[in-house]
Amino acid sequence: MKAKVHVTFKEGVLDPQGKAVRTALAALGFDGVNRVRQGKYIELELEESDPARARENVENMCRQLLANTVIETYAIDIAEQ
Amino acid sequence: MKAKVHVTFKEGVLDPQGKAVRTALAALGFDGVNRVRQGKYIELELEESDPARARENVENMCRQLLANTVIETYAIDIAEQ
Repeated sequence: MKAKVHVTFKEGVLDPQGKAVRTALAALGFDGVNRVRQGKYIELELEESDPARARENVENMCRQLLANTVIETYAIDIAEQ
Repeated sequence: MKAKVHVTFKEGVLDPQGKAVRTALAALGFDGVNRVRQGKYIELELEESDPARARENVENMCRQLLANTVIETYAIDIAEQ
């Protein structure tokens, strides 16, 4: 079973990496980019075959390691592969 | 118009960050994780309102800045917002 996790900054948290990307894009001539947010994308291959349990496991992984829940939020996508 | 970009290592390219995450998960007691791949997730807010032109623009951004196409591959998702 595959899990796809997106970890992004919470709304209102400064995203310096995203800002740097926007500035660099503008310097390259890409106008019309109003906003850039950069986050992490993590793909996990799990032995678990029950989607509900897989999601619960990945939730725990996010809380304990993958995301800093003070400033980041996460979204989990469970795929049957 | 919103664009969502996933930048991941090409198949076969070593992903030390993903490996480190897997090791850390195992140390925390999360067994049954066979593989972890970590990539970047970038959200762009564009002024462009034509989906085809927006995709073309973002393709160019990926090739010129967002992805290192020697070792990375990218996927673009255009959303009407």
